[in-house]
Amino acid sequence: MRFGESRLQLPVRPNDIDGLGHVNNAVVLEYLEAARWDWLARQGLVPGDRMIAVVTRAEIDYHAEIPPGQVEVRTVLESPTADELDDDLIIYRARLRQRVYLPAAPKPAASGLITVAFLDAAARRPVSMQDFLAASVPGVSR
Amino acid sequence: MRFGESRLQLPVRPNDIDGLGHVNNAVVLEYLEAARWDWLARQGLVPGDRMIAVVTRAEIDYHAEIPPGQVEVRTVLESPTADELDDDLIIYRARLRQRVYLPAAPKPAASGLITVAFLDAAARRPVSMQDFLAASVPGVSR
Amino acid sequence: MRFGESRLQLPVRPNDIDGLGHVNNAVVLEYLEAARWDWLARQGLVPGDRMIAVVTRAEIDYHAEIPPGQVEVRTVLESPTADELDDDLIIYRARLRQRVYLPAAPKPAASGLITVAFLDAAARRPVSMQDFLAASVPGVSR
Amino acid sequence: MRFGESRLQLPVRPNDIDGLGHVNNAVVLEYLEAARWDWLARQGLVPGDRMIAVVTRAEIDYHAEIPPGQVEVRTVLESPTADELDDDLIIYRARLRQRVYLPAAPKPAASGLITVAFLDAAARRPVSMQDFLAASVPGVSR
Repeated sequence: MRFGESRLQLPVRPNDIDGLGHVNNAVVLEYLEAARWDWLARQGLVPGDRMIAVVTRAEIDYHAEIPPGQVEVRTVLESPTADELDDDLIIYRARLRQRVYLPAAPKPAASGLITVAFLDAAARRPVSMQDFLAASVPGVSR
Repeated sequence: MRFGESRLQLPVRPNDIDGLGHVNNAVVLEYLEAARWDWLARQGLVPGDRMIAVVTRAEIDYHAEIPPGQVEVRTVLESPTADELDDDLIIYRARLRQRVYLPAAPKPAASGLITVAFLDAAARRPVSMQDFLAASVPGVSR
Repeated sequence: MRFGESRLQLPVRPNDIDGLGHVNNAVVLEYLEAARWDWLARQGLVPGDRMIAVVTRAEIDYHAEIPPGQVEVRTVLESPTADELDDDLIIYRARLRQRVYLPAAPKPAASGLITVAFLDAAARRPVSMQDFLAASVPGVSR
Repeated sequence: MRFGESRLQLPVRPNDIDGLGHVNNAVVLEYLEAARWDWLARQGLVPGDRMIAVVTRAEIDYHAEIPPGQVEVRTVLESPTADELDDDLIIYRARLRQRVYLPAAPKPAASGLITVAFLDAAARRPVSMQDFLAASVPGVSR
């Protein structure tokens, strides 16, 4: 199983701008969340109601102000690696590297490392990444 | 110069709740930002328009779901330490430890370590924490 | 059945402030929603998952800028009237008058008239206000 | 002077979804605000810092739930009319009709009528629509 990069274009909304005239630091996490859903969709995955992914840790570095306009969020799975996924280990956490780019800028304006865990939504108990992925394949009974 | 802890009660707004029925991970950063302004106010500080604090890094651990209701955010300055402040070093970064508690819960539902830097708002160039603090004393020309 | 006024104090969050330095017009609707939940709670009502209230129309007049600080939202049921409720008519819509006050200001900074309808959440079909209220009494099987 | 329609595609963000699983009523006003900026841009207008438009009244009808996905917001100037603009009357208020469409749906999911007034930002005093428009032509000293 291999996972590709997703690149999501998002318009900055006027409401994203704070009193200092740039995108507020909390809003960047909204961009990252939108991009994680896009990343899942590009792997052909649509989470259902039964198995859900929840953020357990977020690290974000803010390198540059984000002005009104457009951003591109690039998302890759950093961990588990392809080898780890092939090893048949049961994996309970995934880490996504997410970078927010301004148009034509070579370096990201913000960079996040987001750790997610997987839950059985009704029971609120942990499930494995493999269970989450299996339940997120469209057509699978969820 | 000594800085005390601030404890800010915040009502969870219905709009803070996401499709999973709990406070969204991005909203927790809104709580932390509100609490940092409260922390400043409790030190007798009110930032002006000239010297501003901007978040350069955020690390947040999400330990438990935050349901509708009330939260308390407790904020302390973790770095620089009191000794470092007394040492007449010029300090360019501050780190605040911020914990979000649910009513009657002994452990925090979320815990953040927020790094801020200080800027001259017009020139967008770094200034020291000492300059920022001096400019945030009410009555000082800002 | 009589319904009283609710008065909810809400802190303005830094994220509520837009590029113009005051509370954004969309955020005022977040305040009104928080106040409607407070209004329900003060009538001893807690909506369950089965019968829900949804906003079908909102009219808001913005009279004055809302600066950082605190607001008070006052909410009353404007329609149906007490007489209409006593008449045993089946009522499908309610209108709440909601006003947002700044501290010590005699006139509201914003005033909204919010129309809500009631739905069976699973079936997404209309139910009456009476059904909604009956299902929102705590302890009732929901 | 004639003003055309703008049609803005906006992705629904996960954070726009509330506990009921659809876009929250307050978020619809964020979509409308983004669309008003798009409408201005399509007329070749970019507001500066000196003359600003502020919302004085919003009326929104919510016709249908907005699910995760994409929306299109269509914005037209409803008042003043072309004739009124040609009449050399001084105009202090404009009304924009804004409709939110779901993909492939013939009828809008939400429809808003937004009244805006124009202000001198520094003096916080009313200016005319004509003054606002003149100050929003790029290249004009603002």
